[in-house]
Amino acid sequence: MKIIVLVQCKDDVGLVAKISGLISSLGANIVSMREYVDTTQGRFFARLELSAFSDLSVVETGLRNVLPRDASVQVKTALPKRVVLLVTKEHHCLSDLLIRHHFQTAGMKIECVIGNHESLKELCSRFDVPFFHISHEEKSKDVFEKELLEKLSHFTFDFIVLAKFMRILSPAFVARFPMKIINIHHSFLPAFVGANPYRQAFDRGVKLIGATAHWVTDSLDEGPILTQQSIPVDHTFGVSEMVRSGKEIEVSVLAKALRLICEDRTFVYGNKTVVFE
Amino acid sequence: MKIIVLVQCKDDVGLVAKISGLISSLGANIVSMREYVDTTQGRFFARLELSAFSDLSVVETGLRNVLPRDASVQVKTALPKRVVLLVTKEHHCLSDLLIRHHFQTAGMKIECVIGNHESLKELCSRFDVPFFHISHEEKSKDVFEKELLEKLSHFTFDFIVLAKFMRILSPAFVARFPMKIINIHHSFLPAFVGANPYRQAFDRGVKLIGATAHWVTDSLDEGPILTQQSIPVDHTFGVSEMVRSGKEIEVSVLAKALRLICEDRTFVYGNKTVVFE
Amino acid sequence: MKIIVLVQCKDDVGLVAKISGLISSLGANIVSMREYVDTTQGRFFARLELSAFSDLSVVETGLRNVLPRDASVQVKTALPKRVVLLVTKEHHCLSDLLIRHHFQTAGMKIECVIGNHESLKELCSRFDVPFFHISHEEKSKDVFEKELLEKLSHFTFDFIVLAKFMRILSPAFVARFPMKIINIHHSFLPAFVGANPYRQAFDRGVKLIGATAHWVTDSLDEGPILTQQSIPVDHTFGVSEMVRSGKEIEVSVLAKALRLICEDRTFVYGNKTVVFE
Amino acid sequence: MKIIVLVQCKDDVGLVAKISGLISSLGANIVSMREYVDTTQGRFFARLELSAFSDLSVVETGLRNVLPRDASVQVKTALPKRVVLLVTKEHHCLSDLLIRHHFQTAGMKIECVIGNHESLKELCSRFDVPFFHISHEEKSKDVFEKELLEKLSHFTFDFIVLAKFMRILSPAFVARFPMKIINIHHSFLPAFVGANPYRQAFDRGVKLIGATAHWVTDSLDEGPILTQQSIPVDHTFGVSEMVRSGKEIEVSVLAKALRLICEDRTFVYGNKTVVFE
Repeated sequence: MKIIVLVQCKDDVGLVAKISGLISSLGANIVSMREYVDTTQGRFFARLELSAFSDLSVVETGLRNVLPRDASVQVKTALPKRVVLLVTKEHHCLSDLLIRHHFQTAGMKIECVIGNHESLKELCSRFDVPFFHISHEEKSKDVFEKELLEKLSHFTFDFIVLAKFMRILSPAFVARFPMKIINIHHSFLPAFVGANPYRQAFDRGVKLIGATAHWVTDSLDEGPILTQQSIPVDHTFGVSEMVRSGKEIEVSVLAKALRLICEDRTFVYGNKTVVFE
Repeated sequence: MKIIVLVQCKDDVGLVAKISGLISSLGANIVSMREYVDTTQGRFFARLELSAFSDLSVVETGLRNVLPRDASVQVKTALPKRVVLLVTKEHHCLSDLLIRHHFQTAGMKIECVIGNHESLKELCSRFDVPFFHISHEEKSKDVFEKELLEKLSHFTFDFIVLAKFMRILSPAFVARFPMKIINIHHSFLPAFVGANPYRQAFDRGVKLIGATAHWVTDSLDEGPILTQQSIPVDHTFGVSEMVRSGKEIEVSVLAKALRLICEDRTFVYGNKTVVFE
Repeated sequence: MKIIVLVQCKDDVGLVAKISGLISSLGANIVSMREYVDTTQGRFFARLELSAFSDLSVVETGLRNVLPRDASVQVKTALPKRVVLLVTKEHHCLSDLLIRHHFQTAGMKIECVIGNHESLKELCSRFDVPFFHISHEEKSKDVFEKELLEKLSHFTFDFIVLAKFMRILSPAFVARFPMKIINIHHSFLPAFVGANPYRQAFDRGVKLIGATAHWVTDSLDEGPILTQQSIPVDHTFGVSEMVRSGKEIEVSVLAKALRLICEDRTFVYGNKTVVFE
Repeated sequence: MKIIVLVQCKDDVGLVAKISGLISSLGANIVSMREYVDTTQGRFFARLELSAFSDLSVVETGLRNVLPRDASVQVKTALPKRVVLLVTKEHHCLSDLLIRHHFQTAGMKIECVIGNHESLKELCSRFDVPFFHISHEEKSKDVFEKELLEKLSHFTFDFIVLAKFMRILSPAFVARFPMKIINIHHSFLPAFVGANPYRQAFDRGVKLIGATAHWVTDSLDEGPILTQQSIPVDHTFGVSEMVRSGKEIEVSVLAKALRLICEDRTFVYGNKTVVFE
């Protein structure tokens, strides 16, 4: 069982020496170590993988003793993360995640899927993953979100993944899950924020389209970006061809972002991410 | 000598048959033919390369006879295009174009370079390309552009290329050269319109940066896009690393756009381009 | 229902005029047309999409009348292609194709899956796709292939897809299905032919890995290439990281190749393909 | 002035702690640190950038004291590297390097250019870079290389760059400059070793072409790879179109490899490189 150590704090002289010295003094073995200093912000980030070590709390206490008082320190075993997926009608991201869940290749366990339409229920049942239908129709956003929250309260999860969930969540909802909601947006943000990005891309006549996975904050499509990808298009692409091509990278971008998160390879600071791939 | 034929008109049944039938009946040889119908706009575009044929006007008249009355028809020999470059201080795009000009690999002849700073004069002199310094300092935009126009009036050219020219041209200036001014913008438009796109990209925390070559219209950075490219960045990229990486694709995007234009491979319709690569 | 027309023949003057003239004279509407002349080989290729037309044989007869005697002419309605998949133990390509089959997004219907191991049976059953286990163990290749052929004889199919099938088929087997067997090879051919390409790539210290979809001929990994893709790797990639990253593009390359084939967008001539994307 | 520290040695427990502890104890400031352990080979690599520190030998001695006896330790100021370029007739890589040299954007100073043809002399003179013509014609390889060596003996240089030098150097010549000769090969090695890779690529019908920068060892095109890139091609690419497209990435791959080397970001171990981008 691997041990993951995540440290984030104000930068200072000798942090790497202190961390690696402490680990070394405990007789633990550093399998890999990545660190980064954001010199413009004076911020230090580190991720270590240790080989098996019996007592995590000894590592954590030791690190807290050598690091600045306000350092964020996490020491944990590398276990699959539990996620809840929110979906609407499009199946492509959900399908891919169900497959990765089924074969346990994503470091992720899907606790359940919640759809505001019923269309994807059948697919979930094929993988024995619980699906719940909570319609948004004929009710206020407030009521809809209350029903969502009620359903979510029955599950323990690390992250909520908006896997092509086409409703905009209220700031109040988002505030309950800070840096716990991941979204896939079908454009290379900040281009084409909001609805129908492929239509916007078509109208603008771009020669590239893209997809962006990001943390959800209360500003629509403006949260910290985890990963992005783009592919070329040309004048022969109508909106539907852009949609078809774009789906391929949406799948790939969301899968990559989830892998990075589930392997504890990402940090957030300000409105940006540090990603140790 | 190759002959290039460009046709753009309202779509109709049998246009390809009419065009290829006419060329065939004249005994000319079609080396390559590309056509495209924008079905949403009902618009037909075609580009043909013919092997040597003595009388271009026979081809043009013949085509006008078989095509709709309002068709745009151009028949021309494939000659290098004459361009004027406008620059400021950054050398990377200019250097690349001077090399391509010097070795005649771009289908393009640089008539002269005009800089609003004097920094790039020395480089131009190394390639025996005339450089003129027209400062924008201590004068109104109106006066500056009058001086530009005066200088331009001494040259015959097909296109003006803004090769990292950091002044915004007035709508009145642009209106004199419709679809004759090409710009390289250092972002994947429509993201990061306007000044300092790399600073904007850094602040937003994107994981991709890009470059866009486009026709200049009177709306800043909103003209028809010719070509775009993007490259990955990560959290270790400060603004200066983005600038350095971005320059590599600015060079490549502008060179490609110019090649496409100089080889008569692009059409404009509405605010979009059709590009037969 | 769309009509697809495929023409391949010796190049000649006026072929486009003849084809488009004939279609036009029948009152059929050309939705799109792509043609290509391989000037080094003097070979002409064309693909047309026509909007609905009642009598396919009229189009075919008409075309045969205006084209060279030895022209290959196919006129067909755009229907899903029937495929049989051969697999071993790896699930990633199969999973992706089952999803595309299930949601009918690939222009392809999977008739059955045959595995030389039983591992993927469970997955197929989740999508109600018949799976047959034909072990290669403790029997000669000849016997194994006889059993394969017997099983195949119960199905009608357009193509056999080797979706990570890790047995090498004999030339005799391949000869029964000329240009009907598609393989995905996990390298950018012609680099790393044969077994364990990721191990070979690791040993060579490459900075790119790739995947190739190709038609199977009797020379191992040397058939006409349909599509290829590559992704960057670095010194931190061991063999297992290359395998994991590589799988993502194997999936994407095979899916793309199948889409191109199922949409009748590919031709073979000599040992090369012409692909109208 | 930045200080660069490069360490390579057998892996051991606590190396990062020892290195960072030593630097810290000297009061030097680590601007950035990258380290990597090749666990399959048990090999440790580290690169540090320190801010200005007066006495390099103190750092070096200190490191040698805390590191294993056989560690390779280099401590140096970040100065431009001196290079000699060998060329034949093609100008594209040379042009790009001359520009980067001229504007000092590559961390590299070109001491001179030696050509086995005279074609590129004129270009070098435009940048005031000495060019020497040493013809290979009508003489044995042995004599040719003796003349090369004699010319090289007049210059002090860190690296020899084969910037499209189309002669194969003998093992004896290469042995004099171990890991000091960089080559750009116009394919994604190990595909298409040897002469005319674009012709080979065309004949094979690949859908990707590439370029590779590598250290030259006595086995042709088999030295440690520094960086590689690929771009898509299709059936419309003849050999000359592949050459034209390929040149763009040859330029880019060689420039990147040189930047990595000149910034001391690469290590060699066995037949592989570790590259800290």
